[in-house]
Amino acid sequence: MTPLKNDIFIKTLLKQPVDRTPVWMMRQAGRYLPEYREIRAKAGSFLNLCTNPELACEVTLQPLERFDFDAAILFSDILTIPDAMGLGLYFSEGEGPKFKNPIKTASDIDKLPIPDPDIDLRYVVDAVSLIRKNLQGRVPLIGFSGSPWTLATYMVEGGSSKSFQKVKGLMYEQPKLMHKMLNKLAQSVASYLNAQIEAGAQAVMVFDTWGGMLSTEDYNEFSLNYAKQVRSLLKTNIDGQEVPTIFFTKGGGLWLEDMAEAGYSALGLDWQTDIAIARARVGDKVALQGNMDPISLYASPESIRKKVATILQKYGNGSGHVFNLGHGILPDVNPEHVKAMVDAVHEFSPQYHLK
Amino acid sequence: MTPLKNDIFIKTLLKQPVDRTPVWMMRQAGRYLPEYREIRAKAGSFLNLCTNPELACEVTLQPLERFDFDAAILFSDILTIPDAMGLGLYFSEGEGPKFKNPIKTASDIDKLPIPDPDIDLRYVVDAVSLIRKNLQGRVPLIGFSGSPWTLATYMVEGGSSKSFQKVKGLMYEQPKLMHKMLNKLAQSVASYLNAQIEAGAQAVMVFDTWGGMLSTEDYNEFSLNYAKQVRSLLKTNIDGQEVPTIFFTKGGGLWLEDMAEAGYSALGLDWQTDIAIARARVGDKVALQGNMDPISLYASPESIRKKVATILQKYGNGSGHVFNLGHGILPDVNPEHVKAMVDAVHEFSPQYHLK
Repeated sequence: MTPLKNDIFIKTLLKQPVDRTPVWMMRQAGRYLPEYREIRAKAGSFLNLCTNPELACEVTLQPLERFDFDAAILFSDILTIPDAMGLGLYFSEGEGPKFKNPIKTASDIDKLPIPDPDIDLRYVVDAVSLIRKNLQGRVPLIGFSGSPWTLATYMVEGGSSKSFQKVKGLMYEQPKLMHKMLNKLAQSVASYLNAQIEAGAQAVMVFDTWGGMLSTEDYNEFSLNYAKQVRSLLKTNIDGQEVPTIFFTKGGGLWLEDMAEAGYSALGLDWQTDIAIARARVGDKVALQGNMDPISLYASPESIRKKVATILQKYGNGSGHVFNLGHGILPDVNPEHVKAMVDAVHEFSPQYHLK
Repeated sequence: MTPLKNDIFIKTLLKQPVDRTPVWMMRQAGRYLPEYREIRAKAGSFLNLCTNPELACEVTLQPLERFDFDAAILFSDILTIPDAMGLGLYFSEGEGPKFKNPIKTASDIDKLPIPDPDIDLRYVVDAVSLIRKNLQGRVPLIGFSGSPWTLATYMVEGGSSKSFQKVKGLMYEQPKLMHKMLNKLAQSVASYLNAQIEAGAQAVMVFDTWGGMLSTEDYNEFSLNYAKQVRSLLKTNIDGQEVPTIFFTKGGGLWLEDMAEAGYSALGLDWQTDIAIARARVGDKVALQGNMDPISLYASPESIRKKVATILQKYGNGSGHVFNLGHGILPDVNPEHVKAMVDAVHEFSPQYHLK
């Protein structure tokens, strides 16, 4: 494999010295880019785009042509695992993801297979290999998965939810069944991420989008526990090269101390959490990734530059901060505003690093 | 006025000794009760119900007939103030509250009047008087308002929002204008709550439903600052009787220390926040109200009893805890499950109080 030409993202996650703060953006390959919308239209559907390695590779690389990002992230969906388990993922216009066969009974959980990524999720593994090859060492490639808890919410609700009534009902009434499902999901997520690592992912991120909807004790028992289990099953050393890991719970700012003990190299921060306070709370245990309010990108480039400066200054001196948004970019942001953010990170961050 | 027969809610907010933990429920007068749905159908619309003091009184008292709640809360909407400012509140089926004349320009903000509650919100003041009279001292009456920030979100967005793009745009691009609007709202909220207190409200609560969507620094500048201003303008001593105050930011668990300095008697807690940790963080500064996950009420009465026991045990010994949900009850909960919660608080809480 071609050696990495820009490794500041990897080094920062491992808290090794760098000369500026790396930057990438959640959903950086996405609808805010006209060139993405063009491929998406050609593909016919979002799922066609995800399941076609060539197209997934093409859209993964698109944002790198426009912006000086320090990492690429696999273009895929977080619900590939439940789909590979047989739940039948589909997208209904304006309503987001849905499952044809959501989890309804104990027997549905008993029957859930643990997918073999090389067979059942071959299209993702192939996309990772192809992207890695096409990146030619320009920047590292991030692989990812939804967290066991977050996958479970969609699988039981049958799609997106506001109240999480069904999945919480299962959790409160039949905690053993819930644990059985989460156990299968943790094994599936780990083997999926290991396959991505073997295929070329140089860092991996676990998205716990819905952990923040839980009480503190339920979060520990049903979300964080399984994020830990995933981490313990990951093979994060490839040919002597460390593969850093990132764990992100949206709405998890209350629980950073516990999250920092889960074994990941870094924690993702949502925009509500103050990054200076977060750094003081986690100490040297983990690096931090985040955390500009995605809505800031609707403001003027001048406002965006100020927001970037504030976040960099709050994190302060030294390695261990990957600049990002606190959640995914929204579909109608002006790409010029993304450029303002990226350029500001390049311009303002060197002062916080050793010369 | 009739003296209070049950004052444990008031005493608890003031951290005076009581013999058990008081309990009430956000949205306790609401759609989960068949007798509410009957009056609501008779009224023709939700707004008709809010603006008719007799009907508002009737639905306020309904839950007290079924459950041993220790407080009544005025039945009203949080958007009465913007409506009184001329924005034209209406409800569109399935989409929640909307405004005919949302805030769009600097001149819209300049022209915003500060309503005179005795004239412009007379129906609320009359409802408070009537409810207080009809309660006959059974339990105290809670008055309430939306927080300035939360009102501002609806006024600028024109209704509910997921991303808060418009109101955050105003905040980022024209912070002075935003402050001007929030200033007017703080004065309006304070005079509205003072009118409710004069009319008979024995405690008041400020609902900051959307403060949790802000970054830490924006929360302090645009939400908490104005909650403080409201508090400083409240007249909370009526005939030598202290009127306790409660401040609730949904999603505000990160900021409890700052909130505890805002001058309120108590803080509302959402269900994500661990109440034992919250108590340790705020110390003796404030009482706490909360914080069972509203979704727990879909579980079996036996699960509900366990959840109640856990929360009471987490808060621990002594006064200063008002039992409540961490957010409003959902419309399709079985009222028998509410009874299980209330009865469990009555049964399990005396052990944590002095004999």
